Amino acid sequence: MPAADPPPSGSATSGPRIVVLGAGFGGLEVARALGAAGVPATVVDQRNHHLFQPLLYQVATAALSATDVAEPIRRILAKYPSVRVVFGEVKRVEHDRKRLLLTCGKEIAYDILVLATGATHGYFGHDEWARFAPGLKSIEDARTIRSRLLLAFERAERESYPDEQRRLTTIAVVGGGPTGVEMAGAIAELSRFALARDFRNIDPITTRVLLIEAGPRLLGTFSQEASDYARARLERLGVAVRLGTVVSDIAESSIEVAGVREPVGLVIWAAGVRVSPLAAQLGVPTDRAGRIPVAPDLSVPGLEGVYALGDIASSPGEDGRPLPGLAQVAKQQGVHLGRELARRNEAVGDTALQPFRYESRGNAAIVGRHAAVFEHGRHRLSGFVAWIAWAIVHVYLLVGFQHRLTVSVQWLWRYLTYERGARLIAEDVVEAPLPAQPRLVNAANPASSRSEAEPQSTAP
Amino acid sequence: MPAADPPPSGSATSGPRIVVLGAGFGGLEVARALGAAGVPATVVDQRNHHLFQPLLYQVATAALSATDVAEPIRRILAKYPSVRVVFGEVKRVEHDRKRLLLTCGKEIAYDILVLATGATHGYFGHDEWARFAPGLKSIEDARTIRSRLLLAFERAERESYPDEQRRLTTIAVVGGGPTGVEMAGAIAELSRFALARDFRNIDPITTRVLLIEAGPRLLGTFSQEASDYARARLERLGVAVRLGTVVSDIAESSIEVAGVREPVGLVIWAAGVRVSPLAAQLGVPTDRAGRIPVAPDLSVPGLEGVYALGDIASSPGEDGRPLPGLAQVAKQQGVHLGRELARRNEAVGDTALQPFRYESRGNAAIVGRHAAVFEHGRHRLSGFVAWIAWAIVHVYLLVGFQHRLTVSVQWLWRYLTYERGARLIAEDVVEAPLPAQPRLVNAANPASSRSEAEPQSTAP
Repeated sequence: MPAADPPPSGSATSGPRIVVLGAGFGGLEVARALGAAGVPATVVDQRNHHLFQPLLYQVATAALSATDVAEPIRRILAKYPSVRVVFGEVKRVEHDRKRLLLTCGKEIAYDILVLATGATHGYFGHDEWARFAPGLKSIEDARTIRSRLLLAFERAERESYPDEQRRLTTIAVVGGGPTGVEMAGAIAELSRFALARDFRNIDPITTRVLLIEAGPRLLGTFSQEASDYARARLERLGVAVRLGTVVSDIAESSIEVAGVREPVGLVIWAAGVRVSPLAAQLGVPTDRAGRIPVAPDLSVPGLEGVYALGDIASSPGEDGRPLPGLAQVAKQQGVHLGRELARRNEAVGDTALQPFRYESRGNAAIVGRHAAVFEHGRHRLSGFVAWIAWAIVHVYLLVGFQHRLTVSVQWLWRYLTYERGARLIAEDVVEAPLPAQPRLVNAANPASSRSEAEPQSTAP
Repeated sequence: MPAADPPPSGSATSGPRIVVLGAGFGGLEVARALGAAGVPATVVDQRNHHLFQPLLYQVATAALSATDVAEPIRRILAKYPSVRVVFGEVKRVEHDRKRLLLTCGKEIAYDILVLATGATHGYFGHDEWARFAPGLKSIEDARTIRSRLLLAFERAERESYPDEQRRLTTIAVVGGGPTGVEMAGAIAELSRFALARDFRNIDPITTRVLLIEAGPRLLGTFSQEASDYARARLERLGVAVRLGTVVSDIAESSIEVAGVREPVGLVIWAAGVRVSPLAAQLGVPTDRAGRIPVAPDLSVPGLEGVYALGDIASSPGEDGRPLPGLAQVAKQQGVHLGRELARRNEAVGDTALQPFRYESRGNAAIVGRHAAVFEHGRHRLSGFVAWIAWAIVHVYLLVGFQHRLTVSVQWLWRYLTYERGARLIAEDVVEAPLPAQPRLVNAANPASSRSEAEPQSTAP
């Protein structure tokens, strides 16, 4: 039932129709800046919620609840009457006709299009690994990992063969960046503290966590000092860190590392980023990682009225190198672009947008309870103080006061008790065979083609 | 890989092997009582969590998080070294050989078997309605209802035809018992308060909630006074209450009530209880509702060493009529049976178990914000005081201090702000076609045959 797009209510002016694709860190800030200036805009996302990605690993490791790290986009933007939110998946961008087609059949016309659809995990051409090694980009990903992780312990408990028990309680994490380090640390702690007393047949403390990194050190974007600290902390937690090691195959119950096949209970994928296929569909040139190179004002060269920011864009930093794929980069870009678009909307005549300049607020990663690294230029912090700073910053950055309160309560509780409250195995994962086809869901990406059906049978 | 069942660790005596099937309100109490007495026992459940069913409707209406109402069974029973928890689905009970077969291939031998597998919702012979009208028995059910409910509003928002908008924002609840009344009240409030400001194209306040009950009044097990109160409260919230009305058909986007077909955005099933198929499989006679009639000591006549309690059992009350399917009945039965089995374990020679006697603690139902009914014998309470009492009792009954704290915080927050924090649409429900086959998952029932595959494609 295709229908013309009704004009947003509360539209103060009859300026250009601005459409923001994706309500991740970048897109949300564009919408906020436009909304604050009363400029009409439409936000399109295939999820109803904005996801606080930095805490997603805590959902995957049963520390937080899915709803703690997700906030309805609609609620965040409710206070801006000029901003309209459309829940829908983009099927195609028809730039020659300046409109989006949604999979539900609706169309959305635009004059200005902001691409903020983010990235998802890539498998370096081995998409067949996806079914065995879930990544961590969405709430569903986090629930899948949580369920499979807890399921591995449950299966080990009812197993009577020691070899099989050992296999089931061997968890491999692929990728030694911040996500991989955070996951490995959190899983080691889950098994050592939260699960320790609960089993009769196995001792969760004997869980083996393998952290596999192809590069020469963990946390490659941090200093050597931070890398060494992270490695030492993780090894103290019992994590086996394997550097300079390449994964050559992943199967249902094993992983092949450096030519050696190792039985595992679960593989978690924390390596490889793949940009949404939107760039390819638009016919613009992309860089090696599939990102769209943008001009300093974040416009996409060759596509008039189209801008890109966040993980889908390759935006030059001060040193000429592309800015890293960080939440703070996307946020700052969003604020900048939103304000510039609003300013131009007010201005008489056509004004050029000012170039974007990134200001780093520092970089942090968690390495287990009480331990984190934080770096900002020459300032380096590690250990307990960095961990406290990380916790305060992340609670503060959470959208919504209720989330801040409940996350704080849960963290305090876990801190005092070592417990993990959210140990929920989803019923549709229980005893289910693995998905028959690779499942590749694109993160905050309304333009992804999520075409693979995932058959889910709840019982054999 | 079938294997002999290893003996539970920490077994103090070599008494009978006691196996408890299901860790709902009844089974859990049996296990606790046995554990407290140091008697070895094995608890089998197909879920890893105990579900606090009375608050499940709040998960379905985006007020609480799934993890708030679920607690790992293993953690609840961790402090009893004589109790072992096995996560698994029972394929078959072979009573002649006194063993359970799990779908994973393991066997569990028993001398004493406690059936506490509960009930699920039944569709009065219309299993084809299940795909259109989800019921509310499991976490997955609650997530499904929440996603479909929020999705209906999202679809209405992007819709331009008023008739279709009206259809999408018409929600029918079938069944006027406590669950139906609670659901209808919570949905009306969700649309009037939490969603009211968030949409541009629709006004959620115009949401129509239909509450359809075949009997002559709401809350049939309460007094006429309570029924009238509930009806008046719900109507004040805008719920259209239809009594003495039978549903004759349910389809994808309509419901046929008293011969008239009505377009709806979602139907929620809160009628009809069906007992797990275990009773039929055991070959014992069952009552009209499929429940197993038990002797006063909760033993199953004709099956030596087998006991049944909770929703799967039909246990005679003082007046000779079967006790109602309430959590408090199951809990009291569980405590009684657990203590009796422990006592007999200690006793020299074979001692008969004492008969169970039920003591009602009263009956409560919520009729929206600030309003509840509570009845205990001649004592009747309704309105704000009943609501406060309900809230305190339910927080107190939640297993685990962390849950009490986070649920209290969230309730307080919602009370002050009218917000609903857990407005999460699951990605696998988004834009997904309805399941091709009826999905009938049995609640706390390890013996259910969950054989229907539910194909889930995330995009058309």
